[in-house]
Amino acid sequence: MSTAPGAPALTGSSLIGAADVLPAGVGFHAVDPVSGTELEPVYGEAGPAEVERATVLAAAAFPVYRRTTGDQRAAFLESVAAHVEALGSALTERVTAETGLPAARVAGELARTVGQLRLFATVLRDGGWHGVRVDTPLPDRSPLPRPDLRQRSVPVGPVAVFGASNFPLAFSVAGGDTASALAAGCPVVVKGHPAHPGTSELVGRAIRAAVVDHGLPEGTFSLLHGTTHELGTALVADPRIQAVGFTGSRGGGLALVAAAQRRPAPIPVYAEMSSVNPVFLLPGALAARGPATAATYATSVTGSAGQLCTQPGLVFALDGPDTDAFVTAASAAVAEVTAGPMLTSGIAGALDRGADAMAATAGVDTVGQGTVDPELAFPGLPRLFVTDGDTFLTTPALAGEVFGPTSLVVRVRDVDQLRQIVGGLEGQLTATVHLAESDHDLAAELIGELELVAGRILVNGWPTGVEVGHAMVHGGPFPATSAPATTSVGTRAIERFLRPVVYQDVPEDLLPPELHRAADVPALVDGVRRS
Amino acid sequence: MSTAPGAPALTGSSLIGAADVLPAGVGFHAVDPVSGTELEPVYGEAGPAEVERATVLAAAAFPVYRRTTGDQRAAFLESVAAHVEALGSALTERVTAETGLPAARVAGELARTVGQLRLFATVLRDGGWHGVRVDTPLPDRSPLPRPDLRQRSVPVGPVAVFGASNFPLAFSVAGGDTASALAAGCPVVVKGHPAHPGTSELVGRAIRAAVVDHGLPEGTFSLLHGTTHELGTALVADPRIQAVGFTGSRGGGLALVAAAQRRPAPIPVYAEMSSVNPVFLLPGALAARGPATAATYATSVTGSAGQLCTQPGLVFALDGPDTDAFVTAASAAVAEVTAGPMLTSGIAGALDRGADAMAATAGVDTVGQGTVDPELAFPGLPRLFVTDGDTFLTTPALAGEVFGPTSLVVRVRDVDQLRQIVGGLEGQLTATVHLAESDHDLAAELIGELELVAGRILVNGWPTGVEVGHAMVHGGPFPATSAPATTSVGTRAIERFLRPVVYQDVPEDLLPPELHRAADVPALVDGVRRS
Repeated sequence: MSTAPGAPALTGSSLIGAADVLPAGVGFHAVDPVSGTELEPVYGEAGPAEVERATVLAAAAFPVYRRTTGDQRAAFLESVAAHVEALGSALTERVTAETGLPAARVAGELARTVGQLRLFATVLRDGGWHGVRVDTPLPDRSPLPRPDLRQRSVPVGPVAVFGASNFPLAFSVAGGDTASALAAGCPVVVKGHPAHPGTSELVGRAIRAAVVDHGLPEGTFSLLHGTTHELGTALVADPRIQAVGFTGSRGGGLALVAAAQRRPAPIPVYAEMSSVNPVFLLPGALAARGPATAATYATSVTGSAGQLCTQPGLVFALDGPDTDAFVTAASAAVAEVTAGPMLTSGIAGALDRGADAMAATAGVDTVGQGTVDPELAFPGLPRLFVTDGDTFLTTPALAGEVFGPTSLVVRVRDVDQLRQIVGGLEGQLTATVHLAESDHDLAAELIGELELVAGRILVNGWPTGVEVGHAMVHGGPFPATSAPATTSVGTRAIERFLRPVVYQDVPEDLLPPELHRAADVPALVDGVRRS
Repeated sequence: MSTAPGAPALTGSSLIGAADVLPAGVGFHAVDPVSGTELEPVYGEAGPAEVERATVLAAAAFPVYRRTTGDQRAAFLESVAAHVEALGSALTERVTAETGLPAARVAGELARTVGQLRLFATVLRDGGWHGVRVDTPLPDRSPLPRPDLRQRSVPVGPVAVFGASNFPLAFSVAGGDTASALAAGCPVVVKGHPAHPGTSELVGRAIRAAVVDHGLPEGTFSLLHGTTHELGTALVADPRIQAVGFTGSRGGGLALVAAAQRRPAPIPVYAEMSSVNPVFLLPGALAARGPATAATYATSVTGSAGQLCTQPGLVFALDGPDTDAFVTAASAAVAEVTAGPMLTSGIAGALDRGADAMAATAGVDTVGQGTVDPELAFPGLPRLFVTDGDTFLTTPALAGEVFGPTSLVVRVRDVDQLRQIVGGLEGQLTATVHLAESDHDLAAELIGELELVAGRILVNGWPTGVEVGHAMVHGGPFPATSAPATTSVGTRAIERFLRPVVYQDVPEDLLPPELHRAADVPALVDGVRRS
């Protein structure tokens, strides 16, 4: 791993405010998932002392950082984006070395990462995030006057962000949770994912540089490295932390939720956890374009070695010749895929166990399988399974997530069985319907049910590839997330780190600027929108 | 207890959909808190069978009720208001008999109750509640096209509402939680508070009449009577229930939160629990109008026998002659108050224990005490206590809520001690500052801290009396509520029972009407507000 000119050298340190901190004791290395070799340097394990130091600094930064204006924070986020971009090939090469993700994916993820930082800058400049609502006073109202009521949103306080293994940039150190929390006015303490500590350090140093450039308190941002559950639990339990953003496994998310609930003062944990992203192939769509759909399906299943939260792990189709043709084409497409590397040996092992268990389930057939490069340290074998609706309904494990490039096609007996299956689905990030004109009635019924199950409904597409915008929802009912009323992607994510406060009869000179009578911010005034 | 002509006779039944259900076994009576006598009829204890029956009906109603239009639900809520109003003196007399609240308070609460139902009707007709966001497609964008993304909010499903003891109308069967959940499109199962079952039955029958008038499914609304914790826990644990609204004690709220977290699929509990509503009397205000402030303070402390969530239980003032004068005037004002009845013997007992403990605390003086009518069954003795800042800081119990007509004035040594006290406050529904021009700098600092502690900041008023409007926030950090990002009063309360869903590339004829391209609803289109 070479370092590009101008990019910081990796030190293995946690970044706690302005200080590089390399705790004594055992450390850990990143591992190249292609070769299986350890990557330098060694990263020190942060512990309770480092958590305390980072959160004390974050709490000290909060009174200053929360009072920065939206314009100031917009400029800061844009500066973070610029510093991340300036890392250039030093960053993308390290991402590739630590994750094995293909170059095009890394480039796309980098663009998304800086793009969402800049998108939050536009949100901050717009001012709608203040959530201003005004009820004007009615001093002569009988029997009691109406007071002057002015509502705005305030940041909740220091936020803990857990980097995701599968998005080393877009949902890691300067990813969506960090961007939305910083946008809201909350200092951030990131626990970097131990699978990509070098990527985390590079990006962390870029954020720190922006903190320095903008004269912000050092505790506005810290990055802790570590591999232990204790580190994460200590961070969530710390009384200075006021909210948590997490993307990862169901077990990990639930452990953090439990830790947050055990606190003397519980806090919200926004955990994005588990989704199999069901897809429904309706008869008209299969008849019109089944084989073409099979090809794009295989791409969505196996891209990034299937390590995407929105990977389509379950496909439902009514049994019949068109479904046979789809399965044949999908099997052939999967067979042409060469296994990519999984992010870690642990994830690779979990994939093998999960896929082997599915293959061994009575009533499940393995109909397609990719190839493995024998040189690959942690291969993720693409596999396509098929079962029938009766087996699916009587084998609850088949509805669970297998993280990686596998998918299960369920041949459904009839529409009644399809209804039964839909009625039993757990909460999902996405649900997809492939349809043609002739499928209208069934599609309408299905979408009407799926909107109760998922945060995003797609038609004639694939759920992988999440657009970052104003309208996106990356969320959904439990177990997809722990907070179904929110999204972790898109501009509404800022709401997770804000809380409304109303000021009653507070004189103008004691009100925050956005609540002044002449303030030029979007507001709801006596129930009427003012832009 | 007479029944007015036209008002339904009380039966003691739970109202489960269209059926009156009177479970066998022991029942309970309401008790007149003035006389201590039991009021007829006997109310049957609902149990698991009734929970099951009500939630099954609610789940069956949901697919129909959630598809009603905003206009249809607006008309339904207005019909509920009209049916409640039509109960006339039968309702207000029963409220008085069951709660001992004064007639003016009951009349005001009735007006608030029907007013908030009608306010939610205006919200529904406005359409902003749909939360529409649209990102228009960019089919030619490189490297990937942007899909068509259309976000709206959907109701979460059947909601359990727990009636509050202290708001027999405005936060009970047809109160704020019910109004906001019904507005959102969620069927409601209310567990009525056992202290006012007759009031609950009357109001429940009014809602049922509106359900019938509007041809809605019977399961849109049910009312269960009962006194046991098991009933509440069973309701929260029921898999058909998707969210919970609760107003009551900290212990009760935390028990429901725990029950909701133990579910296989946890759900949000919106619990409004505990607040002492600190008030800060700044030097300029005390000098200018201390005695006048003392009179309004005593009214706020003892009104409704102090049984209001926003009752000011703690007052902080810098020690000195003006504070002496305030305490003297407040003591005199409290001494003139005759004890009103507490809502229940349990609440009266808790008040006596809490106030006795405070009176017995070393460093705390009882400086004012009202009088008790010896005929009163459950009197709530008004008491005013004074302590000093050192005692307050070293006696954490003094910062806890004593529900009833008591309050504690803390003589604070200096501004530094005031800062220390503010830094240690728990989350609150409200925080109040009394100030004059000369207090500007201290007030600015104080408000800057209090906005992190409370959901509502008031200047030169008293927190009792919550305005229901678009800008109100009745909420705050733990332990004031379990969900600090939300409000239980005001139009934003509807958001607690909604969840965003985005529709990606869904054809127009499969989209809900509010997402059609020509829809005339408020929306954020490509980040720009459209009214």
